[in-house]
Amino acid sequence: MPDREEPNARGLFGGVFARGGVDAGDTAWLQAMLDTEAALARALERAGLAAAGAGAAVTAVAKASNFDLAELGRQATGTGNPVPALVRALHAMLPGPAAAALHQGATSQDIIDTAMMLLARAALDTTLGSLAEAAAAAARLAAGHRDTAMLGRTLLQQAVPVTFGLVAAGWLTGLDEASQRLAAVRRERLAVQFGGAAGTLAPLGAAGPQVAALLAGELGLAEPVLPWHTGRLRIIELAAALAGGCAAAGKIGRDVTLLAQSEVGEVHEGGPGGGSSTMPHKRNPVAAIAILGCAKQAPGLVATLTAAAEQEHQRAAGAWHAEWQPLAALLRLTGSAASWSAELLAGLAVDRAAMRANLDAAGGLPMAEHVAALLTPKLGRPAAHDLVAKAAAGGRSLRDVLLDGGLTASEIDAALDPAGYLGAAAEFVDRALAAHASAVRP
Amino acid sequence: MPDREEPNARGLFGGVFARGGVDAGDTAWLQAMLDTEAALARALERAGLAAAGAGAAVTAVAKASNFDLAELGRQATGTGNPVPALVRALHAMLPGPAAAALHQGATSQDIIDTAMMLLARAALDTTLGSLAEAAAAAARLAAGHRDTAMLGRTLLQQAVPVTFGLVAAGWLTGLDEASQRLAAVRRERLAVQFGGAAGTLAPLGAAGPQVAALLAGELGLAEPVLPWHTGRLRIIELAAALAGGCAAAGKIGRDVTLLAQSEVGEVHEGGPGGGSSTMPHKRNPVAAIAILGCAKQAPGLVATLTAAAEQEHQRAAGAWHAEWQPLAALLRLTGSAASWSAELLAGLAVDRAAMRANLDAAGGLPMAEHVAALLTPKLGRPAAHDLVAKAAAGGRSLRDVLLDGGLTASEIDAALDPAGYLGAAAEFVDRALAAHASAVRP
Amino acid sequence: MPDREEPNARGLFGGVFARGGVDAGDTAWLQAMLDTEAALARALERAGLAAAGAGAAVTAVAKASNFDLAELGRQATGTGNPVPALVRALHAMLPGPAAAALHQGATSQDIIDTAMMLLARAALDTTLGSLAEAAAAAARLAAGHRDTAMLGRTLLQQAVPVTFGLVAAGWLTGLDEASQRLAAVRRERLAVQFGGAAGTLAPLGAAGPQVAALLAGELGLAEPVLPWHTGRLRIIELAAALAGGCAAAGKIGRDVTLLAQSEVGEVHEGGPGGGSSTMPHKRNPVAAIAILGCAKQAPGLVATLTAAAEQEHQRAAGAWHAEWQPLAALLRLTGSAASWSAELLAGLAVDRAAMRANLDAAGGLPMAEHVAALLTPKLGRPAAHDLVAKAAAGGRSLRDVLLDGGLTASEIDAALDPAGYLGAAAEFVDRALAAHASAVRP
Amino acid sequence: MPDREEPNARGLFGGVFARGGVDAGDTAWLQAMLDTEAALARALERAGLAAAGAGAAVTAVAKASNFDLAELGRQATGTGNPVPALVRALHAMLPGPAAAALHQGATSQDIIDTAMMLLARAALDTTLGSLAEAAAAAARLAAGHRDTAMLGRTLLQQAVPVTFGLVAAGWLTGLDEASQRLAAVRRERLAVQFGGAAGTLAPLGAAGPQVAALLAGELGLAEPVLPWHTGRLRIIELAAALAGGCAAAGKIGRDVTLLAQSEVGEVHEGGPGGGSSTMPHKRNPVAAIAILGCAKQAPGLVATLTAAAEQEHQRAAGAWHAEWQPLAALLRLTGSAASWSAELLAGLAVDRAAMRANLDAAGGLPMAEHVAALLTPKLGRPAAHDLVAKAAAGGRSLRDVLLDGGLTASEIDAALDPAGYLGAAAEFVDRALAAHASAVRP
Repeated sequence: MPDREEPNARGLFGGVFARGGVDAGDTAWLQAMLDTEAALARALERAGLAAAGAGAAVTAVAKASNFDLAELGRQATGTGNPVPALVRALHAMLPGPAAAALHQGATSQDIIDTAMMLLARAALDTTLGSLAEAAAAAARLAAGHRDTAMLGRTLLQQAVPVTFGLVAAGWLTGLDEASQRLAAVRRERLAVQFGGAAGTLAPLGAAGPQVAALLAGELGLAEPVLPWHTGRLRIIELAAALAGGCAAAGKIGRDVTLLAQSEVGEVHEGGPGGGSSTMPHKRNPVAAIAILGCAKQAPGLVATLTAAAEQEHQRAAGAWHAEWQPLAALLRLTGSAASWSAELLAGLAVDRAAMRANLDAAGGLPMAEHVAALLTPKLGRPAAHDLVAKAAAGGRSLRDVLLDGGLTASEIDAALDPAGYLGAAAEFVDRALAAHASAVRP
Repeated sequence: MPDREEPNARGLFGGVFARGGVDAGDTAWLQAMLDTEAALARALERAGLAAAGAGAAVTAVAKASNFDLAELGRQATGTGNPVPALVRALHAMLPGPAAAALHQGATSQDIIDTAMMLLARAALDTTLGSLAEAAAAAARLAAGHRDTAMLGRTLLQQAVPVTFGLVAAGWLTGLDEASQRLAAVRRERLAVQFGGAAGTLAPLGAAGPQVAALLAGELGLAEPVLPWHTGRLRIIELAAALAGGCAAAGKIGRDVTLLAQSEVGEVHEGGPGGGSSTMPHKRNPVAAIAILGCAKQAPGLVATLTAAAEQEHQRAAGAWHAEWQPLAALLRLTGSAASWSAELLAGLAVDRAAMRANLDAAGGLPMAEHVAALLTPKLGRPAAHDLVAKAAAGGRSLRDVLLDGGLTASEIDAALDPAGYLGAAAEFVDRALAAHASAVRP
Repeated sequence: MPDREEPNARGLFGGVFARGGVDAGDTAWLQAMLDTEAALARALERAGLAAAGAGAAVTAVAKASNFDLAELGRQATGTGNPVPALVRALHAMLPGPAAAALHQGATSQDIIDTAMMLLARAALDTTLGSLAEAAAAAARLAAGHRDTAMLGRTLLQQAVPVTFGLVAAGWLTGLDEASQRLAAVRRERLAVQFGGAAGTLAPLGAAGPQVAALLAGELGLAEPVLPWHTGRLRIIELAAALAGGCAAAGKIGRDVTLLAQSEVGEVHEGGPGGGSSTMPHKRNPVAAIAILGCAKQAPGLVATLTAAAEQEHQRAAGAWHAEWQPLAALLRLTGSAASWSAELLAGLAVDRAAMRANLDAAGGLPMAEHVAALLTPKLGRPAAHDLVAKAAAGGRSLRDVLLDGGLTASEIDAALDPAGYLGAAAEFVDRALAAHASAVRP
Repeated sequence: MPDREEPNARGLFGGVFARGGVDAGDTAWLQAMLDTEAALARALERAGLAAAGAGAAVTAVAKASNFDLAELGRQATGTGNPVPALVRALHAMLPGPAAAALHQGATSQDIIDTAMMLLARAALDTTLGSLAEAAAAAARLAAGHRDTAMLGRTLLQQAVPVTFGLVAAGWLTGLDEASQRLAAVRRERLAVQFGGAAGTLAPLGAAGPQVAALLAGELGLAEPVLPWHTGRLRIIELAAALAGGCAAAGKIGRDVTLLAQSEVGEVHEGGPGGGSSTMPHKRNPVAAIAILGCAKQAPGLVATLTAAAEQEHQRAAGAWHAEWQPLAALLRLTGSAASWSAELLAGLAVDRAAMRANLDAAGGLPMAEHVAALLTPKLGRPAAHDLVAKAAAGGRSLRDVLLDGGLTASEIDAALDPAGYLGAAAEFVDRALAAHASAVRP
């Protein structure tokens, strides 16, 4: 197969966009289609609709390496999808009785949609594994830095103190929420597709639903209420859950690129780091960048898959076809973003000293809210707010402001200590860890 | 308020895009913000952090009609959101003790995000009502046409027979699936936002989480594990569930526009129909068109909301702001699509005679699959397939082909009767109805 | 008109998202439709197809304030668009001969599409004005800081030195490119729509094209080769040009939020700044945030408008309708982003001292590329690169590395002076300014 | 290279989504990167910055087949892009003097962006060729069917008559407009990228701009005003122009699927047609479906590429990376849609008899507008409109209505003849053909 080329797999950019083991490339697609045909043959045999041994016979030859993927692709030109050519090729490999059972009752879409579900299941399993690793690492960071004060930043401006534990708890909660949704979709929404030409399974007579149930059982997929040829809500749900995985990772990637800025320096990616070919001193946050590079492709893919749900009658003319590559890309990219996240978080170096230094360098301003609150009982809120704002803008120190406000030296020290103005940060960390613990418990 | 203008409400196009009662216009936004401030004052009072009566005092003045919406909008220019101006205006209306409690511990984002959740809840309640009406009508259609044979159409070509009951069952299943997801999001994912400047609730000291819980209770929203200022997965889930509602409706709209085509004429919208200003004979499927007009805006909005989940640190610089209007638009459009669907399905005229006539006019070709299957035991599948294909392409009738294949006259009649080739259609209808019945049972 | 509410105009969030004077609200839509009807009446009169005075009569009553916008919206429910109701209302206001000429030859889509073009033209004129202001300010910044050295930052890490003039020149070039494309679309692609029910102008007999030409002339719009009812490329081009405007602004917004970070502090927005209700010390980059809030909504809207170009036959069932509000939103948001950009750039405070201090604080590392290059002739590239990388990673200063490499003290000073490693920055600034000068010259 | 797999090339689905010769697969990417490195070496040599022969030496080894693509992909993991590994591999193949010139002054982004432009150029050339073929075929259809009357259809309802020539002229105009925009982007906006680490070309001293100009000359790309590392408007313009190509093709695909419906049957795709594996009688419009399958992926990709234009400082952390695969996919899909369009239009069978029969079967209703217009002088417009509407709704024939309205038999025949109500259809066809002729003239 010299010109076999895989749309969704490794290749030149796969190190960045196909990390982590999700395989939604052409060979994986082909194998999933073959797995579906083989399972169908077994189901037909179990239903008494195929000769004994037909299932095993189809299963025996249904290996991607037996087929010329590129040739199947070329033949797809005549029909708009590769299944008819695949069925012909399979047919030619089988003895008569097994050949007679092949693809019985099925339409091309049954094979492709079910294969898509199999690909999705494998991808979700891999991705959920990566997300679990990432969440475990985030939990360690949250626990380990439960009380590590750092600057909170809103609208990219220094605000009030937070803890790095709280930041990591936010990442953890995002990863857990994304995982829960992906797990729910995997459990409830990955269903077999089997309806025949127009969803009635007419060629199988009264046995259609039984075969559908057996097929679902063979493949370990859910059995839907109806064939869902043009009812694509499960694709939207799958796509959105994947986008959620990308978003949870993307939040981490965005924060790490910002916290790793040369001027901030509060975290660094572990490992060798991304050296620059031209700038020997640079240590690029490669994992965070790769996460963002993956995650930023998700919204457009979700839009494509959502728009594709408008499908005509019993089989769509184009909208269905438009799902195959975007869904494969989204599976791959989410898996990659999750894998990068696991690596990033496992190796993340957190620089407590830099966090402390940045807090100190802010000269008390992150405590301005606290100071204003402390002065409010004495001065009223507007006057307290204005006094502090003036201090922030002009040259006076907050310490002087506090002296003017009538606070004692020890009151002032307390007012300006970030550790004294962390509110519920630690409690929130504990809650996130508890929620995580209960989420991972089976 | 002479220049009050509402971004998301009725207006010139609201008859099409804002039907059904979802209100995500500016006044609704303002009221939801006020409801949040009032609930916070009550929560603070219950926590002992505000003077007795403060909650009632804020609640008493927190009515949108007390405020100049356009003026708030103008003042939002200085801060990037309207909350600071709103808090100033509220403050001016309150006696000192209540004023002191106002907005305590909160940041602008707490108010806007919580208001967004309140808008979403009201919108989902309205939309779920419309979807339930639509599903009930679809169920009636499915039951009433359980055995009404019609042409199935794949890739916009006539295929094998189906029943209109099965078509309606597909619509029903879509509506039910969309409703279930929307209901789950409404139940589990609409959470209060209350974290203060950077998510620690520091101004409230140790009382922060208690106030957050009380606030959630006051508003009837879920209490999140953590403040979710920059953890936006629930927005993605909400957006995707709304897009699912649009997709379920859009499937119906697409099918109805196709089935109502002049050349097909199998269904017609009830009611006066969309007369044309220039073509007196036209009867446009206005509801189906309106559904599509709404639903086609969903994918882009979902992309926007998904992309906006990449938010910096403790508050995003722009990505958060980019959510407000798209989410309001998506709430409104989904509500409108659902409402149009309920009307369309309740009034849909199904023309059994046209369905039968179209089947008859197809000259047996929709039965070609059946015929090929019947001939297969005698001729082998390839020969049977080819024979029928030749009949389909050329001039010979399927009846003649069957005679050549050695079938008897009564076998031939059976072979060509659509009612005899409906497979599991009726069983699938029953399954969809049963699933619907169990879905709507509380 | 007590319940008139405008979807795309000011309101509660208009200070952020509808700044700058682009009006694509309902009243503007209505007026544009009326302008089209009036121009058509005048065109018909000039073509001898309407009674003398008919054009003036229609023109006289065609004022939005004469109509009940909400009532038109309600009546749109019956037809899917407000034009039939509008024509009826206009008809009732006119004397018989003028009434007879009203809407002659036109279909609803002719009126709405032409109105959309008129809205777009007004919006582009406003937006191009704002972009020109922004570009003029960017040009002043580029010229004024042609030689102001600052840190270049790649992948959010400090890299080699650049100048702020070069940064501003990049902004300028983006604004100019976006303006040129918007101006080209305005000039070449905003065309009248006039084709009647199905694009043949049959009711006007042989006079159709003449009336179309006169109508184009009345309105100052281009005359298309054909009616473009379902040929929507000009909408895609318009949408993409608007997205280009958003992107040019968004680049500025992104850079300013980053450069204005508390830890970087190299630029600050002028004006009062966005004070925080809770944190008196904060000075938020409100304009930059508002730009990003607008610009981040563009990609989804472009997706919607691009997808909507798949339109059926002679008039689309839903895809056309799906364009109205997204295009209006995109016009408004682009205008707002452009206006915010003009304000931001006009008032931007550039802190040369902070730029210098950040360079100095980097301890020569931004010069590492330079140093490595200087050492390469002596050590070979790999060894030079490694030596510098080691210095960057570990404790040794670049100065010591250079000494080891055999450079003299004055060579070392030169090697470490950012001003000596700015390459073509100044030349590039000059080129951008020259391109700008030739772009704005009529 | 056993595990070389290509993301954007043929494979299992390439017959559908990668038809027509656009190659944006990994090998093409790699070759384009190598072409850029080789051209840079030649440019450096011409500028006197590299040893004589360095350009030829690099050019000689810069062949994709010399490299292990998958290994480069693996090494990309460490840096986020494959260029550093590629430079190392190239370096190892070169003699010292040539090695010293390699990649001089360049940064990874220079290589990738320039390669992207080279891929785009080749893709546009191929795609413009396909579009030209398609347009030529559309022009033949328009000319050949200039006067072939058929039903116009609005909102998927039969409306007034049009001609198939006018339909084809609409397709032609779309193809021509898309081609013009693509050609303009190819001519004006595909520019070399060469700025070095942060856009100053500092390592080349004063020679930077000269080398950039020589590089542009070597590659035949435009020279930009500035390096455009984070100024991505040209990517948006390219993406939008490609989406325009997809939209022009998609309009054809949508119309052909509708006109080829079994119930309409006015056109058929030529060639063997898409036989169904299960339904021997089916003749699927495979080309039209494939076009739609490609075109429906464009809006999401455009959204991704538009959103990616928000890039930080001098190099983006993720947004840049997010462009590579979506742009390659969009190039490939547009080329495929264009190629399918050329094939579809060249072989399209137009069934004049079916068009006439459908007109006749409509029973004069498509002439209702005409009839109403003829009756208006006698009855007034509202009465005429109502009379005809009643006829359309109820049982009376239009002929009887006309008799009641006082028309003579010959007036009635004229009133009901579609050929007499085609308005400017023929003139519009001629205009489209003339515009096409002037567009293709060099």
